[in-house]
Amino acid sequence: MITSNSNCMHPFDEAIVLRVSERQDAPREFIGSTHPAYANMVGPFGGTTAAQLLQSAMLHPERLGEPVALTVNFAAPVADGEIRFVARPVRTNRSTQHWIIEAHQTEGVVATATAVFAVRRETWSDVEAVMPANLPTADAVPRMPVKGLPAFPQRYDMRFIEGALPTAFDEQEQSHSRSTLWVRDEPERALDFASLAALSDTFFPRIYIRRRRRAMIGTVSLTTYFHADSALLTQVGSRHVLGVAKALNYRHGYFDQTGELWSPEGQLLASTHQLVYFKD
Amino acid sequence: MITSNSNCMHPFDEAIVLRVSERQDAPREFIGSTHPAYANMVGPFGGTTAAQLLQSAMLHPERLGEPVALTVNFAAPVADGEIRFVARPVRTNRSTQHWIIEAHQTEGVVATATAVFAVRRETWSDVEAVMPANLPTADAVPRMPVKGLPAFPQRYDMRFIEGALPTAFDEQEQSHSRSTLWVRDEPERALDFASLAALSDTFFPRIYIRRRRRAMIGTVSLTTYFHADSALLTQVGSRHVLGVAKALNYRHGYFDQTGELWSPEGQLLASTHQLVYFKD
Repeated sequence: MITSNSNCMHPFDEAIVLRVSERQDAPREFIGSTHPAYANMVGPFGGTTAAQLLQSAMLHPERLGEPVALTVNFAAPVADGEIRFVARPVRTNRSTQHWIIEAHQTEGVVATATAVFAVRRETWSDVEAVMPANLPTADAVPRMPVKGLPAFPQRYDMRFIEGALPTAFDEQEQSHSRSTLWVRDEPERALDFASLAALSDTFFPRIYIRRRRRAMIGTVSLTTYFHADSALLTQVGSRHVLGVAKALNYRHGYFDQTGELWSPEGQLLASTHQLVYFKD
Repeated sequence: MITSNSNCMHPFDEAIVLRVSERQDAPREFIGSTHPAYANMVGPFGGTTAAQLLQSAMLHPERLGEPVALTVNFAAPVADGEIRFVARPVRTNRSTQHWIIEAHQTEGVVATATAVFAVRRETWSDVEAVMPANLPTADAVPRMPVKGLPAFPQRYDMRFIEGALPTAFDEQEQSHSRSTLWVRDEPERALDFASLAALSDTFFPRIYIRRRRRAMIGTVSLTTYFHADSALLTQVGSRHVLGVAKALNYRHGYFDQTGELWSPEGQLLASTHQLVYFKD
């Protein structure tokens, strides 16, 4: 099913592999590439591109701490093949570090990102957002059928409680676009920052849920705040996390949607927001 | 009250003035500076820095369209004085344009931004977020007293319906941090993209509302999605807009908050999200 190396790497780990560029003038550049296991309808799933951008800071020798914020701007279609990542730590403070990252292909910049990394300290903590209550466990919900879908949704085990991707675009407009689902990598994989960044982009475009109608869409900007640190990610492991998503506003070719990713124990792992281009 | 030039510019217009840098090697750099009318407790109000960053793309001769997304990362304290803005259009497509912008002071980068600009087309549009209903008009709500506060809150006319900034930090923890308020520039000023970007940062840190307790705080990343185009901004003019804000999660030194800015007629002008450092 998946073109995999003989060393049995998870396809997501294959997809985010970066090697140091050999360009003499660019000692901190990385080369990655698109991966067929995460192909979307056109080009790669944006979540893997987001994960690669983050990874180019994670792997940088000057990296401090763990990511707390990531914004990815999708500047142009990513062509299948190599991508060159240039990550610059533009400011390093005592406990925070600010990054500008660019993804290049032959014709120019295809994506940009900014990231904030931090060394965290324990403080008073509290979840103010409300996790949906009285939900069935992941085991009690059937997996979304993925037959006939592009490779990318086949790499996620999605179990919709509400607001599934329509199986037919019957143009029956809904009153809202809210989705609630259990989701994990398929095959199972222990959660880390790279996969959490990719999961933030797995919420289908809200306009499909809302209008049940085809539209050309493309995410232009994706922001994720990482509330989880690596210790919390380890606690989650490879279990399903709960995803909740909804749209806020659709106007003149752009809409925004907001999502939350929750641990089964009710910790908010990440909140994520994106602005999406659409043509109806 | 305000140190104003003799030409009676609005203090916000003074605060975002940029002049082209005279550096020979940098034809598209701009020089701005902090403005005493927008001073915060330490350094300038982040909203004016965000507006300056946006403005350096707005004024750039290669600019295409109007802003739809802006992310500002506050990398280091901004010192009072000059700020050098370097705006680069890293990718220009037929109807979208992607920017990376840096703000420099003597010791290095103090802020970065990415922005997406777009030429919009009319499409099916709908507000899915819910504007609070049955609210008193701005005229029926008293203005927040600003005596003794830094300059920045004096530059806004804020009329809280719910979740006002505590007048005393009595440490009576609240169950939530939601605020609802009417807000406009003070003195009145017609809304534009720069002031909408600044307004996005006027929501006080949610931890003050929630815990009614002092804390060291600092926004590290601020994202604004502009749903309004310039025609809609013109309709709003200099009237109050409705602001709604709440926190999602506080954990290990960082919390995120989300806000909405609504026209009096119920159009969502902007949605905005930020990640804030705190030390309790």
